[in-house]
Amino acid sequence: MEKQETPVLFMDRSRIRENYRELKKALPPFRIAYAIKSNSHPELIEILKKEGSHFETASVAEIEKLLALGVKPEEMVLSNPVKSPQAIRRALDHGVVIQSFDSVEELEKFKEHVPKIRPVLRIVVPNEGSMWPLSGKFGADEELWHPIFEYMRVHHIPLDGITFHPGSQCETIAGWDSALYLTWRCIEVSREFGLNPTTINIGGGLPVDLGRKIPSAQKVGKVVMRHLREWEKKGFKPTDLIVEPGRYISGSAGVLASRVVGVARREKTWAFLDCGVFTGMMETIDGITYPMLFSGTGEKERVILCGPSCDSVDKMYEAKIPHPKPGDAILFLSAGAYTSVYASEFNGFLGPKMVWLDTIKDPKDLFALL
Amino acid sequence: MEKQETPVLFMDRSRIRENYRELKKALPPFRIAYAIKSNSHPELIEILKKEGSHFETASVAEIEKLLALGVKPEEMVLSNPVKSPQAIRRALDHGVVIQSFDSVEELEKFKEHVPKIRPVLRIVVPNEGSMWPLSGKFGADEELWHPIFEYMRVHHIPLDGITFHPGSQCETIAGWDSALYLTWRCIEVSREFGLNPTTINIGGGLPVDLGRKIPSAQKVGKVVMRHLREWEKKGFKPTDLIVEPGRYISGSAGVLASRVVGVARREKTWAFLDCGVFTGMMETIDGITYPMLFSGTGEKERVILCGPSCDSVDKMYEAKIPHPKPGDAILFLSAGAYTSVYASEFNGFLGPKMVWLDTIKDPKDLFALL
Repeated sequence: MEKQETPVLFMDRSRIRENYRELKKALPPFRIAYAIKSNSHPELIEILKKEGSHFETASVAEIEKLLALGVKPEEMVLSNPVKSPQAIRRALDHGVVIQSFDSVEELEKFKEHVPKIRPVLRIVVPNEGSMWPLSGKFGADEELWHPIFEYMRVHHIPLDGITFHPGSQCETIAGWDSALYLTWRCIEVSREFGLNPTTINIGGGLPVDLGRKIPSAQKVGKVVMRHLREWEKKGFKPTDLIVEPGRYISGSAGVLASRVVGVARREKTWAFLDCGVFTGMMETIDGITYPMLFSGTGEKERVILCGPSCDSVDKMYEAKIPHPKPGDAILFLSAGAYTSVYASEFNGFLGPKMVWLDTIKDPKDLFALL
Repeated sequence: MEKQETPVLFMDRSRIRENYRELKKALPPFRIAYAIKSNSHPELIEILKKEGSHFETASVAEIEKLLALGVKPEEMVLSNPVKSPQAIRRALDHGVVIQSFDSVEELEKFKEHVPKIRPVLRIVVPNEGSMWPLSGKFGADEELWHPIFEYMRVHHIPLDGITFHPGSQCETIAGWDSALYLTWRCIEVSREFGLNPTTINIGGGLPVDLGRKIPSAQKVGKVVMRHLREWEKKGFKPTDLIVEPGRYISGSAGVLASRVVGVARREKTWAFLDCGVFTGMMETIDGITYPMLFSGTGEKERVILCGPSCDSVDKMYEAKIPHPKPGDAILFLSAGAYTSVYASEFNGFLGPKMVWLDTIKDPKDLFALL
């Protein structure tokens, strides 16, 4: 392969497949609906389609992108709980019927689409094990279930199912455990209103290796399957089970390669990279730090990693790295998710080009491609 | 004009011209070098070119964009203090010779380009009046002037000039006043090393109306011109004076129109808009709040304004707005800068389309275009 200009995001085809299969093994009865917001590259979608994956979307544009790639509407869910009336209608026209909601206000928009639409209630669950807690913006808590279910009862809107999200990069099993207890509680309450949910969507949140201890898909699956068995004993067997991994599928399959552009040794030492907050590393402003590999050698030095733009926000994080000099390469691991999709062209700096490899045996080998 | 779909960024041609002319009146001997990072739409560049404006850039891509639009290289400055060796060379090949630096490390890259290059030292100045302090990432403090000037003396690198930046949206005159005292001090120190700076670039930072009291261009100009007169009395008359407004030119000329997509009344009330952090309102995560106008009426309600994506980061700010319902329009004023340029396509939601109007007499009139 010819040498690649940085920044470049190397993606590993076989790792995508392995991640998919590992999750399928951990959660056999589940439909895996890949969250394309984490990385929507057509090649990734192609690989997953062949594996039998379904897809999670948040917008009409995402739905139409998938349709253009040959994904069938019944293989998609629209899990954005708040949508414009136009988006709801266009998604339904395309045949995407499973749609989330978390408020009476959203049900008012759903009403005219009964029985075509399959409304799935997004509930609030604890997000404390997650790096990016989602609660607040989305989800109905128990206080709100009553007015929501009452509205559904009165207006004859069926409750197709219940969904939750333990938060992105959820690093504790407890996230799923408590969420599933709450889900059961919600099922019970809904039944008091004559509703009969049969779809359970456990959202995403499965973590990738960012240098801390994380639960494996197998461990998460064990907890989830235990709840399913308990529910079955109580006479409840969901007819549609969905999980929506994003980062888990695409994150570990990507290695972002960047180069040091310049160094300024001042009160602090600043290492300027050719990739920054606006060109892929947006999650760093929210606290993510990636495992890194370095082409440089020499004594380690504490530096602030920052991007190439003139913007003060374009600053990643402090790290100890081998004495940096212009031209040194840095590989950011577990960077296949939520990087390229956030890139803008601010200040004329472009985000990483995506380059697909059959397999990345050892990330260190990638230095030879730069 | 036909009705516009939201989100849309209405830009006012005459306001661009007025802003340019007002600044030219406030700083007559200065070259105005518009910072295209704030809004790089070709129409804006066209208008400013006709007014006689020059341009500030941070990357080769920005330089090449301007060249393609017919801007001459001598009408550009490259004010990014840290660049790759390739970027420095390509800018010089294009004829852009005024280039900033703030470290010995950058001078090492400049060395081979003497005498073609015109090195301008970026110094650190207080940024406390600014909403986005820039210090830290950029600028040499007095401690660093000595090794920098010594390096220039030994390697026969001329010091073309001195530059500073009071920080974006600088809302106090004191920002410029103290910066100019520091600039004078730097001139004196550089002379001790046999250097002879003749270019003074006062950067950007001129503020727009975000609902607080701000100094006018005229007031900033008064302070700057006072320093120039004092310098002249001491026998120093710069031969090249540059100012680099971005937000000041493009910010007040833009009105961002968005619609409420959905409302969720929970512990807090969330108003979901069709424009969010990833589709133009990136600066809100850093604390900006825009003056707003509403199509909705009714009693005001405290809400959290958030964007349409499924991302928890996609959350703007709390505000009291008329009882929101889907379809309500909100106009964000002073939104022509640092909005469209930050937009990505995350989650399939597109940033605002830019629509140019000859003049926006009263922003309220824009509701009729939605």
